[in-house]
Amino acid sequence: MAPSNLNPNLSADPTSSQALDVDAYVEGIRGGDRVVLSRAITLIESTRERDRVAAREVMDRLLPDAGQSIRVGVTGVPGVGKSTFIEKLGMSLVDDGRKLAVLAIDPSSERTRGSILGDKTRMGRLSQHESVYIRPSPTSGSLGGVARKTRETILLCEAAGYDTIFVETVGVGQSEITVHSMVDVFLLLGIAGAGDELQGIKRGVVEMADIIAINKADGDNVRRAERAQRQYENALQLFPPTDSGWEPAVLTCSAETGDGIEDVWTAVTEYVDHTQSTGFFGEQRRRQARYWMRQTIEQRLMDDFFSSSDVQSKLREIEDSVLDGTMSSFAAADELLDAYREGR
Amino acid sequence: MAPSNLNPNLSADPTSSQALDVDAYVEGIRGGDRVVLSRAITLIESTRERDRVAAREVMDRLLPDAGQSIRVGVTGVPGVGKSTFIEKLGMSLVDDGRKLAVLAIDPSSERTRGSILGDKTRMGRLSQHESVYIRPSPTSGSLGGVARKTRETILLCEAAGYDTIFVETVGVGQSEITVHSMVDVFLLLGIAGAGDELQGIKRGVVEMADIIAINKADGDNVRRAERAQRQYENALQLFPPTDSGWEPAVLTCSAETGDGIEDVWTAVTEYVDHTQSTGFFGEQRRRQARYWMRQTIEQRLMDDFFSSSDVQSKLREIEDSVLDGTMSSFAAADELLDAYREGR
Repeated sequence: MAPSNLNPNLSADPTSSQALDVDAYVEGIRGGDRVVLSRAITLIESTRERDRVAAREVMDRLLPDAGQSIRVGVTGVPGVGKSTFIEKLGMSLVDDGRKLAVLAIDPSSERTRGSILGDKTRMGRLSQHESVYIRPSPTSGSLGGVARKTRETILLCEAAGYDTIFVETVGVGQSEITVHSMVDVFLLLGIAGAGDELQGIKRGVVEMADIIAINKADGDNVRRAERAQRQYENALQLFPPTDSGWEPAVLTCSAETGDGIEDVWTAVTEYVDHTQSTGFFGEQRRRQARYWMRQTIEQRLMDDFFSSSDVQSKLREIEDSVLDGTMSSFAAADELLDAYREGR
Repeated sequence: MAPSNLNPNLSADPTSSQALDVDAYVEGIRGGDRVVLSRAITLIESTRERDRVAAREVMDRLLPDAGQSIRVGVTGVPGVGKSTFIEKLGMSLVDDGRKLAVLAIDPSSERTRGSILGDKTRMGRLSQHESVYIRPSPTSGSLGGVARKTRETILLCEAAGYDTIFVETVGVGQSEITVHSMVDVFLLLGIAGAGDELQGIKRGVVEMADIIAINKADGDNVRRAERAQRQYENALQLFPPTDSGWEPAVLTCSAETGDGIEDVWTAVTEYVDHTQSTGFFGEQRRRQARYWMRQTIEQRLMDDFFSSSDVQSKLREIEDSVLDGTMSSFAAADELLDAYREGR
């Protein structure tokens, strides 16, 4: 089944209607047609061989139109107000004439579904706006598969004229690292009362952030948020500098009142200006492109390996021997590799 | 050429003398013979096919004797006093009856050679002690290859009766992540005046530490070191908890005077007690064993792929297209995979 879509004008499963030809996809997307964009994304998400061939041709033709956007990763555990934050910041951006696409990576699916773009009401105004395209995470697939689809969706949205891309993730697993490797700038949303809200975040994620925004800085909470801001500022000085040479910005904001929301965007543009002036921006994008090429190859080689019957017939026993310490990891690898090679 | 060895009684290249048979290796190591241990490690590091077969048999036979140690990763950039720290802590451990092996991971080799176990004088007493075995990093090879050799060396040292293994790394690259995946506890050595000494450390490493020890807490520096300790304690509260549920310990010490050095070891044993009581200790070792099995398979599959002539003949051009944005990462991966499969 195709993922549900929050955009209007598209109630039926797009693949169930007559398929478009490649020209129609390319022209529709270049013209900014959101229904065609949605159908192209569904095509990319399809596992049918015929669809994959068509998807690849669409991608190849549209690639020259892609790349002209700011790609922003937005992470934060459920409860920090991500949807409200994206709604508020998004509305401010589209009021300024920007075109915004909001995507999500959420391979852990079921458990966190409610928090990822699922709740239309929290993005009510944004999801109705003509300059906004919202697409939830593919409903199935490994993180690698979801990542590939999301990365291609970014490119399609750029080809359709979206100049600002948010990639949202819940911050609980490996998905931040995946998102980090497909965006230009990584924004971590937190709240005051540090500690509790971090329970779900993986170690290493805080150090990946280019910008930390302490949300819910309103009413009685302003002083606590400002204290958290100072604490983070002090803490980050103890940590190594980022590869980009950019010193992470720590801000407070309230998605509820809108206070400080524009400052977060100012920090994003300052980051982009800084990294473009040093050349890091383009260098990172090239590194990411290369990373995804190699990552895809690795994933496929490993999939081939572990799905081969020669490996599968031995895997359980060998892995058990490794886990109980009677066989070394390397001897086990050798034995499985031998079985794989002989079987080919 | 075999790596140089800091142990006495072994001046010649071990592989140049007559090779031992597998029984001799196994019995020698079980008997704690350091010369035989050194020769076995050289065997593991050898790339000759005959040596690899023998090495694997030696490993298989000794594996049941391995595992009974505490494996400690020690990281910190040059200048924090790692060698002096290891000398001081090591002497205290062997005085308590422990047997210590000190290994190193340093794939970046040339640049940092001087700082990794190269300077005997800084570990003068330790390197002479009969309960201590010191082995520098293999002199060549990829990080993956060095990692494999180091992991197997850990197992051989354990089989030879060493109950404490230090794996040292300089903290400048990917090597900490590698070390982190082969030790039980990860110790980061820092100094007061945070900032400067962090220039070389990769982001994410501080968050990996189970124990942070601020060294050079002596003389005029004590107060600064204690301030750094408090800063780190405060900072770490803003970061997510570790997978083990252990709250990272932050200590001060002086490798010069010996102050606080035993407290660092107390923290190590507390960490071990904690993780053994929760089951995390064994669970992490099993996860690591599985990781290294998969990692080895992945590395070999990728090596086969990128060394195939079908891939090599296209790689440069395709990768360039990816880097200049005219071909998508996924189309490039598909094309290379097709070339590879057709060529087989």
